[in-house]
Amino acid sequence: MAHLLSTSCSLNFSSGCRPYTKPLIQDSLVFPTSLTFQTSKTPFGKLLLHGGRSQSTCTVHATTLSPSREAPKEPSYGINESSGGASKSQRVMVIGGDGYCGWATALHLSKKGYEVAIVDSLVRRLFDHQLGLDSLTPISSIHDRIRCWKSLTGKSIELYIGDVCDFEFLSEAFKSFEPDSVVHFGEQRSAPYSMIDRSRAVFTQQNNVMGTLNVLFAIKEFREECHLVKLGTMGEYGTPNIDIEEGYITITHNGRTDTLPYPKQASSFYHLSKVHDSNNIAFTCKAWGIRATDLNQGVVYGVRTDETEMHEELCNRFDYDGVFGTALNRFCVQAAVGHPLTVYGKGGQTRGYLDIRDTVQCVEIAIANPAKAGEFRVFNQFTEQFSVNELAALVTKAGEKLGLDVQTTSVPNPRVEAEEHYYNAKHTKLIELGLKPHLLSDSLLDSLLNFTIKYKDRVDTKQIMPSVSWRKMGAKPRTVTA
Amino acid sequence: MAHLLSTSCSLNFSSGCRPYTKPLIQDSLVFPTSLTFQTSKTPFGKLLLHGGRSQSTCTVHATTLSPSREAPKEPSYGINESSGGASKSQRVMVIGGDGYCGWATALHLSKKGYEVAIVDSLVRRLFDHQLGLDSLTPISSIHDRIRCWKSLTGKSIELYIGDVCDFEFLSEAFKSFEPDSVVHFGEQRSAPYSMIDRSRAVFTQQNNVMGTLNVLFAIKEFREECHLVKLGTMGEYGTPNIDIEEGYITITHNGRTDTLPYPKQASSFYHLSKVHDSNNIAFTCKAWGIRATDLNQGVVYGVRTDETEMHEELCNRFDYDGVFGTALNRFCVQAAVGHPLTVYGKGGQTRGYLDIRDTVQCVEIAIANPAKAGEFRVFNQFTEQFSVNELAALVTKAGEKLGLDVQTTSVPNPRVEAEEHYYNAKHTKLIELGLKPHLLSDSLLDSLLNFTIKYKDRVDTKQIMPSVSWRKMGAKPRTVTA
Repeated sequence: MAHLLSTSCSLNFSSGCRPYTKPLIQDSLVFPTSLTFQTSKTPFGKLLLHGGRSQSTCTVHATTLSPSREAPKEPSYGINESSGGASKSQRVMVIGGDGYCGWATALHLSKKGYEVAIVDSLVRRLFDHQLGLDSLTPISSIHDRIRCWKSLTGKSIELYIGDVCDFEFLSEAFKSFEPDSVVHFGEQRSAPYSMIDRSRAVFTQQNNVMGTLNVLFAIKEFREECHLVKLGTMGEYGTPNIDIEEGYITITHNGRTDTLPYPKQASSFYHLSKVHDSNNIAFTCKAWGIRATDLNQGVVYGVRTDETEMHEELCNRFDYDGVFGTALNRFCVQAAVGHPLTVYGKGGQTRGYLDIRDTVQCVEIAIANPAKAGEFRVFNQFTEQFSVNELAALVTKAGEKLGLDVQTTSVPNPRVEAEEHYYNAKHTKLIELGLKPHLLSDSLLDSLLNFTIKYKDRVDTKQIMPSVSWRKMGAKPRTVTA
Repeated sequence: MAHLLSTSCSLNFSSGCRPYTKPLIQDSLVFPTSLTFQTSKTPFGKLLLHGGRSQSTCTVHATTLSPSREAPKEPSYGINESSGGASKSQRVMVIGGDGYCGWATALHLSKKGYEVAIVDSLVRRLFDHQLGLDSLTPISSIHDRIRCWKSLTGKSIELYIGDVCDFEFLSEAFKSFEPDSVVHFGEQRSAPYSMIDRSRAVFTQQNNVMGTLNVLFAIKEFREECHLVKLGTMGEYGTPNIDIEEGYITITHNGRTDTLPYPKQASSFYHLSKVHDSNNIAFTCKAWGIRATDLNQGVVYGVRTDETEMHEELCNRFDYDGVFGTALNRFCVQAAVGHPLTVYGKGGQTRGYLDIRDTVQCVEIAIANPAKAGEFRVFNQFTEQFSVNELAALVTKAGEKLGLDVQTTSVPNPRVEAEEHYYNAKHTKLIELGLKPHLLSDSLLDSLLNFTIKYKDRVDTKQIMPSVSWRKMGAKPRTVTA
């Protein structure tokens, strides 16, 4: 959406990260005081933004280091030899690489030896400005983040700032970076955001669906062998009264049998946009031979990964508000500031959850084991199921250990969803490929709670309660703040 | 898409239709030489087109007749009393009412006593200009069509010219007309068109999905009780190896049972857009209590309905080209001009078909028996199944009776689809509500062939062959003409 994305940027090359106040985990890291940068071989001029307005966007190759400076590659998951071997999956474009999951993934892949480019319009930061929200954690600019990463590790991450809905921009990024894999996090990812008003509902579906169509066309046009790793959501399935399979279900009906896409019952315009994406991608796999993996991710919790905790400038965002905050993260913040845990309705809503350290691991596994040409592969990406009440009980118990007085309150459910239901979703395919889950443990909850306590002075308690109603949303433009 | 829709129009009120050269079916019709027009109570100023450009569109209330001039109502299908009775479904907004199915439907509903408004951007006519195509039949402007209808029947059809993707326009149309039912044909409806290039793929999904979202928001905001009758397509289901049910399927899996949305496997960006619509509508029924009927229509054939054959100015469009032409219509034109019938691939592709006289009947039935609040009802709207080879054989036989030398040729299939497959789709719900099908008979084929022979001098044989390849479509803008 052009009106959201009139972005221009400049980059000052300075001397790397500011000194870090905490001990670093990797002692062997070198902080260079000067760096050699090279600009991209493909200079970008002014690119026309999607929508036809004559604004310019700026694509920045912030930290392209000469190859001789690259750290040795560290592949950690077996590459599927039948799919072409390691050499074919080394260049990874992370669309949405400035976001919560994207940033952690970009660093993880860079650390593992992949050559990484981030493609991002930075619109997620704009959403916060427009809604009056902020991450619990202070987060650095994408330019500082990338520069810090380079200083710490010697590894370069290329940066393309622009909107994947702008096909001219995306084409140039593809032609310049020549990805072997594209990890696509570049979507509006909040269900409540998509339910604020008509404009944001339409934005969510247009941005997500058209952006993904453009990615598919870019792969077909410029990098036919490129493996698309697309972030879907477990929310695509809804809460059927039968077991949820991984993407497909074999149905016997009137004496005949077929294996068909698993029926979807999404429950917000955001979740629906992911269903639309899945259907579009499946078609292009069949029609064009695109190789794609759809990662139907559960609710992500946690903030630190091995890479983001290396320096405070690498710190990830942590959302606790009623629009972007996910359940467990929000509960931890509520416990830290003495706000009752807000259970929506009866609290029997059960979903799949995973640690952000497993998000990055799963994406790496998918890249290292690419789908075959024409294959539309679906993995359910979560490690454990919890009901909201179970999560609240876990946080209460962990809080009490830390001396916190944790209360729980039921608030009217702003969503339209079953509050008591059967839920049993399969999630074995990533395990079979080598995922070693970080299960939710007391120690993780302790550290997450301590983390939120550290930043509790930054909490804006006005943002904690749900502010978006599924039933009451209207057509008129609305901004949800106190 | 703003660039397609910079429409302005003017209207001259003249003395009705030009004299018709053929006998009219209804002898009792009166041709008034003067009419009383009244303008809408809601004057429309310049409305901003979707996309933000400052172009104006003009909304015309062409022929709003004073209520005392209305012909008596002629309800022909039982109104479902439990759904509110006859008085609630008398004002019908036909979105896309200038198109092939929409025009026939608007006239049929007007004839049956409904108060009808057509909402249309007229973009279908622009597609023809841009691609160098034309209807086999000469078609009058929407203004002349509506004026002629008024002259013949005394019945008014209101006209709102604009784009449903422009919510400001749509809101004004809703507030002015206050529909009890909305029949939504207002989508880009050609699979090949959606596969021409990236721009048209994106246009198709954006236009269809965002337009339908806007319709849903307009209903929620302005006419909560309004019944949405949405045209879907049988193509949403694809060709599964099990029986196709009407919208839902009951699945028993691992000892548990649920009734879920029937799995979809669409095979063009157009068909996918309808799947997206279905998912979006289903959600709003659940979340907002929208009442909706999704008519998954088969391939429509024929041109004449009782209403369109009343006068040549009411004549419907008839597409035979490789982009917009449907199989049986195209075969009849090919037979008429001595062009071999072009069977794509093996010709075993089997689909549901229906006569356009049944399209209008089905829509009337759906309106007369509205869905309940919150109900997402799905009807499979076709009357018979044929394979492409079966259709070719029928046309060959009918042509030979008329002394035509009809050849058939297999051309490389431009689509990606199974050419031999199981196909058995249920279609009983509309029959149960009173549909009396016009089955494809020798006499219909005779008249259809004679009709195409009448207009054969208008055939552009360059447009007959398939010009759009599913596999070869690219990102670059393309215009498919000779």
